[in-house]
Amino acid sequence: MKEVYLDNAATSRVKPDNVLEAMNNYLTNIGCSPGRGGYECSLQASRIVLNTRLAFADFFNVNSSEQIIFSHNITHGLNYALKGLLSEGDHVITTSIEHNAVVRPLKGLEEAGIIEVDYISCDEAGILDPEDVEKAVCDNTKLLVTTHASNIIGTLTPVQQLGKIADKHGLYFILDTAQTAGIYDLDFADLKLDVLAFTGHKGLLGPTGTGGLAVSKEVAQEMEPLIEGGTGSISDKEYQPDFLPDKFESGTMNTVGLAGLKAGIEFIKEQGLKKIREHELELTDRLLQGLDAIEGIKIYGPKDTKLQTSTVSIDVADFDLGQLSFRLDDEYGIMTRSGLHCAPLAHKTIGSFPEGTLRFSIGYFNTAEEIDYTLETLEELMRTN
Amino acid sequence: MKEVYLDNAATSRVKPDNVLEAMNNYLTNIGCSPGRGGYECSLQASRIVLNTRLAFADFFNVNSSEQIIFSHNITHGLNYALKGLLSEGDHVITTSIEHNAVVRPLKGLEEAGIIEVDYISCDEAGILDPEDVEKAVCDNTKLLVTTHASNIIGTLTPVQQLGKIADKHGLYFILDTAQTAGIYDLDFADLKLDVLAFTGHKGLLGPTGTGGLAVSKEVAQEMEPLIEGGTGSISDKEYQPDFLPDKFESGTMNTVGLAGLKAGIEFIKEQGLKKIREHELELTDRLLQGLDAIEGIKIYGPKDTKLQTSTVSIDVADFDLGQLSFRLDDEYGIMTRSGLHCAPLAHKTIGSFPEGTLRFSIGYFNTAEEIDYTLETLEELMRTN
Repeated sequence: MKEVYLDNAATSRVKPDNVLEAMNNYLTNIGCSPGRGGYECSLQASRIVLNTRLAFADFFNVNSSEQIIFSHNITHGLNYALKGLLSEGDHVITTSIEHNAVVRPLKGLEEAGIIEVDYISCDEAGILDPEDVEKAVCDNTKLLVTTHASNIIGTLTPVQQLGKIADKHGLYFILDTAQTAGIYDLDFADLKLDVLAFTGHKGLLGPTGTGGLAVSKEVAQEMEPLIEGGTGSISDKEYQPDFLPDKFESGTMNTVGLAGLKAGIEFIKEQGLKKIREHELELTDRLLQGLDAIEGIKIYGPKDTKLQTSTVSIDVADFDLGQLSFRLDDEYGIMTRSGLHCAPLAHKTIGSFPEGTLRFSIGYFNTAEEIDYTLETLEELMRTN
Repeated sequence: MKEVYLDNAATSRVKPDNVLEAMNNYLTNIGCSPGRGGYECSLQASRIVLNTRLAFADFFNVNSSEQIIFSHNITHGLNYALKGLLSEGDHVITTSIEHNAVVRPLKGLEEAGIIEVDYISCDEAGILDPEDVEKAVCDNTKLLVTTHASNIIGTLTPVQQLGKIADKHGLYFILDTAQTAGIYDLDFADLKLDVLAFTGHKGLLGPTGTGGLAVSKEVAQEMEPLIEGGTGSISDKEYQPDFLPDKFESGTMNTVGLAGLKAGIEFIKEQGLKKIREHELELTDRLLQGLDAIEGIKIYGPKDTKLQTSTVSIDVADFDLGQLSFRLDDEYGIMTRSGLHCAPLAHKTIGSFPEGTLRFSIGYFNTAEEIDYTLETLEELMRTN
């Protein structure tokens, strides 16, 4: 049976060959823990970590590599930022299309009576009006946190304008790039970001167990570390270092993961973001047009690749979406994800709560033929239902 | 040049073949994110995570696999437990041979005026008198946290007695097994543990980016999650799930790492802990005897493999230890670690602060020949100095 992987919003399944090679090289030939000083093979491990940091500083246009902090995944990174920065009495602005990686930490802090949050409503297509964000700014607003793109309908948020609003009102601006890093241009300085949270295993084509933050030096100073412990630095001190990146990186790093992630970012730089994005959006356009032509399918979101990523959600008349997703895989090898995609607020926004949607998310390694096969399969299933 | 890796207390450099095979199999043939329901390849990923959990529940004799929580490394796990359980006014008992993974989170909470901590002094060999621990118990003592073995001199703590003391006084008992899991028997029930923290990439022979906790159901109930976000469960809810293991596992799991870790634990089960431990201690005995015979070498710790792990620290007359460690690697391919090993308190205890020690830590893949070569090299270096 064919295999068509259309769940790239969850993780990129196929990794470039150099990612596997880099991981195998670390495991086979290096294998040591990074350390300051020490033996050669430990220095090689340190170099992997440092070079990955340098690659990200360059990739996101961050001044200095120490402003790149690695974490277990983007959810951890977002928690570091939100819980490390927010304290009693702070007000936060976010949107109604956020993933639970942003919503749950905020709801937890709200529930504990520590902060207040405004969830700015996006329209049914997930589109946010930056004016609504500006109107919500209060005296005690500490930060603005938004996703760069919805993980269910792909809608892009107006990051340029949001950055300007945050800058104008002296708010920290935290951007969740889970759905866009490795596909869209992300310029930390230009977007006036204070925190850019990224995940390693989606568009950046690295392995699981990787992700992190790019942070401004000001944020790094103010942010309290959630996790403390050994850092290999100032080992004579029983207190957490207060300098970057060590303040936020305790315990043994995921060096094998970072070796793979560095290879992922190298592959992306080699291909070019523009080529990757254009390929994904061309296929998305093909999918959107094809879906639009099938009677009984409702497409959520902007339906316009200028306004969205390669993630498309649909409802299908007369079908249970969970069952449909199962049949697509079981009978045709087409892998999709149905349900709420860890984003209940976003589904409420687009009107698909609590049933959820059937989600297709396209990656760089998908082909036009795969999109056509998916469309033909959907047509056939609906015709024969 | 020969390569002799004697830094197993930092990480196990050589992994069994099946660890690499399992990781490559995941990356090449699976590659998907675990998910509830959904397509077959996502179910395969879920099975990897579940089977790793089951393997650990069996390995540590924990009732139910959901009591196994995975984290980025053991430091994260220890932070989850300490910061998740402790609150205003709590008293904590720990020892003077702890790693910074325990000391720094505690010092942070102390510094913030939230808790009080007693660091029970061990003797110069790192030996802890359980009576001293019992004497320190106060009305507000919430928990006892200790390492199972020093990461600089290998001294084992009297866990059986400590478990009984904790049990008698209704304290939570948290054990840091960074230096012992995969080598020593660890029976969660028998040791009366409430939290067993483990790291994946040392004795358990898995890759970096893995580790976690085994927790009692009572602890799991009380412990607040440090990290919140998407869990793939109760996706209709904007609040963190309150059930195990999801409460403490937010964001995408390190599935490729867990695939490797599962293979590591399988290798250990196959070899048997006894065989692994006996091999390591036999080599340790050989090393201790050899070191003892070299004039000008001071050995720290119990110098007795009934009282310690395979980690040995020394001072060497007329040598700068950093330089000696460098030369051992550079000229002879012998990898050791000099300095404070992220354990300043422990070095103060044994009298090697702030200079630190030269540390040898033996693993299962070391050989008697390698130990002899190390001893001969040391002798030669001292003779020709």
